Parts: sequence; C-alpha cells; structure tokens
Amino acid sequence: MAVKDDVVLGENVTIFQPSLVNIYGCRIGSNTKIGAFVEIQSGADIGELCKIQSHSFICEGVTLEKGVFVGHGVMFINDRYPASSDGDKLLEGSDWSLETTLVKEAATIGSGSVIMCGITIGKGAMIGAGSVVTKDVPDYAIVKGVPGRVSGDMRERVSRELNTSV
Amino acid sequence: MAVKDDVVLGENVTIFQPSLVNIYGCRIGSNTKIGAFVEIQSGADIGELCKIQSHSFICEGVTLEKGVFVGHGVMFINDRYPASSDGDKLLEGSDWSLETTLVKEAATIGSGSVIMCGITIGKGAMIGAGSVVTKDVPDYAIVKGVPGRVSGDMRERVSRELNTSV
Amino acid sequence: MAVKDDVVLGENVTIFQPSLVNIYGCRIGSNTKIGAFVEIQSGADIGELCKIQSHSFICEGVTLEKGVFVGHGVMFINDRYPASSDGDKLLEGSDWSLETTLVKEAATIGSGSVIMCGITIGKGAMIGAGSVVTKDVPDYAIVKGVPGRVSGDMRERVSRELNTSV
Repeated sequence: MAVKDDVVLGENVTIFQPSLVNIYGCRIGSNTKIGAFVEIQSGADIGELCKIQSHSFICEGVTLEKGVFVGHGVMFINDRYPASSDGDKLLEGSDWSLETTLVKEAATIGSGSVIMCGITIGKGAMIGAGSVVTKDVPDYAIVKGVPGRVSGDMRERVSRELNTSV
Repeated sequence: MAVKDDVVLGENVTIFQPSLVNIYGCRIGSNTKIGAFVEIQSGADIGELCKIQSHSFICEGVTLEKGVFVGHGVMFINDRYPASSDGDKLLEGSDWSLETTLVKEAATIGSGSVIMCGITIGKGAMIGAGSVVTKDVPDYAIVKGVPGRVSGDMRERVSRELNTSV
Repeated sequence: MAVKDDVVLGENVTIFQPSLVNIYGCRIGSNTKIGAFVEIQSGADIGELCKIQSHSFICEGVTLEKGVFVGHGVMFINDRYPASSDGDKLLEGSDWSLETTLVKEAATIGSGSVIMCGITIGKGAMIGAGSVVTKDVPDYAIVKGVPGRVSGDMRERVSRELNTSV
C-alpha cells in the first residue's frame, strides 16, 4: 500500500491499484479516479470529479480544479532550473523556488504531455497529446505541439460537430 | 501480483516483474516479453513475439501484430477528446467513442512516443523515439517528430548498410 | 522489494519506495536519491549526489557522472534500431549493438525528455523538459525541443541573474 495516511481523501475516490501508486501529503476531491503508476506529491490539490490516468506525475504546487482530465504519462513540473547538488552536497528543500501551476475546471491534458511550471491552463482547455506546454493557455483553447501553440477553440469544435450532425 | 486471472496468456510469455505491472482482460501472444510498470487494458490484443518495454501503456482498442517492438514509456490513446465529467458526474463507459489502433507485423515504436488513436502503423515501420504519431504510417516507413512525418524507408536503410559493409 | 542483491550501492543512497522500483545489476553512487517507478538496468553506472526522479528509465550503457539530475519520466536509449524478432524468434542479447551514453557532472535533464543513444551530454548542461536529444550537447549548453537544439548557455543565465539582483 503506497497511499499514505496523510492524504486527505474525499468521498468515493477510486484508486484502482493502491499498491502501485505513490500518493502522499495531498488532497484528493470526491469522486476522483486515479490509475496505476501515479505519483502525487505533498501539497498537490486535486479537485473532485477528476481522472488522473496511469503513469502520471503531479507535483507539489499543482492545483487541479473540478473535473480535470489528466491523460497517461503526463509530467507536471514545479522547478524551472532543477539541479541535483551544489557540487558537494545534495540540494534540499530550501535551495530552490517552487512555481505553482493551476489547471482550471474541466480542462483536459492529453497523454504524454509535459506541463512547465508557473502557468495556468484555462477552463475547458484541451492540451493535445504529446505537447510541451510552456505558457498560459486561454479558456477553451486547443493547444498542441512542442512548444504548445493554440490551434483551435473547443467551443467551435462543439458547434461544428452539432452542425455536422444536423 | 497485478496480472489478473482474466488475461489470456500464450505459451512462454515473460513478465519480468509480475508485481509491478497492471494487466487485465487482454490477450497476450506466445513468446512475448513485458517489462516493469506496464499497463495493458481489457480488450487489447498483443501478438506473439512482441516486446513491450517498461513504462508503456497499451489501451483497449489497440492491436499489435506479431513481432511488434514497443519501446519504453510509449503511450497509446483510444479517445480523441477525453474528458473527465459532464460537470456534475464522471463520464463513464457509454459517454465516449473508442477509436482503434493497429500496429502491423514487425513494426517498432521508439521510446517516449505517443500514438494517437484511429491509425494504422504499417508492417516493419520504425517510429523514432519521442515522436507523436497522428496519422497512418506506411509499411516500412521511418517516421519522426512532433507531429510525426515520414523521413525514410527501412528497406533503403538495410540495403545501404549492406552496401557499406561490402 | 525490487532492488536486486546484485546492485552495488554507495553509502547513504535513498530509494524512496523500494517496492516500486526495478533496479538490478547496476552501480549507484553515494548520497544519490531515487524516486518511485524507476528502472535502472544492469551495467548502468550512476554517480554520487545524483537525483533520479520518478518514472525514469536508465538502461545498460548509460553513465551518469557526479551530481546529475534526471527529471521525471526521462527515457534513455541504447539501441538505435530496436526490433522484437527476426520473424520466427525473439531477438536476444547478441543480435543488437549497444550504444553508450555519457552524462557529465552536474548536468540536468528535464522531465519527459528522451535521450537518444551514442551521445555525450556536457558538464552543467540543461536539457529542457520534453526534449528529444539526438546529438552531443556541449558543456553548459541549454538544449530544448524536438529534436533538441542549443538555445542558450547556463553560464550566461547565471551571470544575468546576478546582474538582475544587483
């Protein structure tokens, strides 16, 4: 079992393989589902009705609002210039500055994406699979590529599909 | 042990770390080898003589033919516009449409690649490491980049190497 | 426990979740820290004062010098044209050629990067998150993108920050 006692779990959270995750010191909202091989660090704040798919890493400083979808193998970041040591000893907690990331309600982050720190991903935004997101994403924007660029708007996609189906 | 009883295993399948995988409801052909931290979902169909390297995710709707090589940290996808909830409740099985993916005989998918859904990767094709593949790949094509583009042909590479060695 | 007895561990190595790693046949230097869901293969050589973050894969043929930082979900490679079988049987140890990779002292490899084989990453270099590194990286270079290209120098960054803080 690698869900530590210090995790604040909402009601009806599903962790599909409790022995194959590493979750500690975070808050997880009600009705959220979490896949295998997921790590969620201390201080992360996961909203209700989220899905965190397998192989993803959510670090300290990340907030996911309600209904966020995190695909498989997504990597969040909280340190822009990480380093291991100062030459003689390991760098520890006080030697770096945490940059926070906010993912707003109902945004989707495609599998294999990397989310640079210090940014906000807007409400209902769609991050295409395999993107590297390096700056703020507007609400409902579709972002793709390395680095990620806006390539569409989810509201237009929905209206287009509605037109097509008429 | 996280290889569920409902997996249909061929003869002589090797799962290097049975306690560190998450494999359920799929078929795995004879003589295939599977690394650590691999998830294979219900309904995936893995051929014989395949290698599935560590940290890879193979979802429902994916078929790998005979002799396919899947590198480390490869992410397959089966839902083009995933979402977590409709605002009030989690989306479940009936709320999305599965798009299938076929990887033909003896294709190789390099480590860290992301394979978008609804495509076919041709026989003997080579997907370069770190690619994001978004459309069909011809037989024997070498594909690289984000998004992946054809950059060569495996048959020419082989003949060139034979010439070089003369 | 998936840290095999044949691992040569230096003093004061920290493996945060010994039951959630797959480490065998390698050497790990003193004071190094290793996260969850990490695989390190036989023949890899990890220096002292390194940090290997969660979800990373370090293969045979990789040498990390002192103080290297490997982010989350980093994939190393040691075989340029991997394949699964020759059509009838699995390819095994003698059927491929290993290409080695060297990461020099105090280099940092950002999360989600893929490191192609046969290259050297220079001292103090910084590989941006989500990069695919396909050739040698000079000492102190900042490299980003797919494929990775030099976009700066860590020594200039440091001097610029010192100027700014004056």
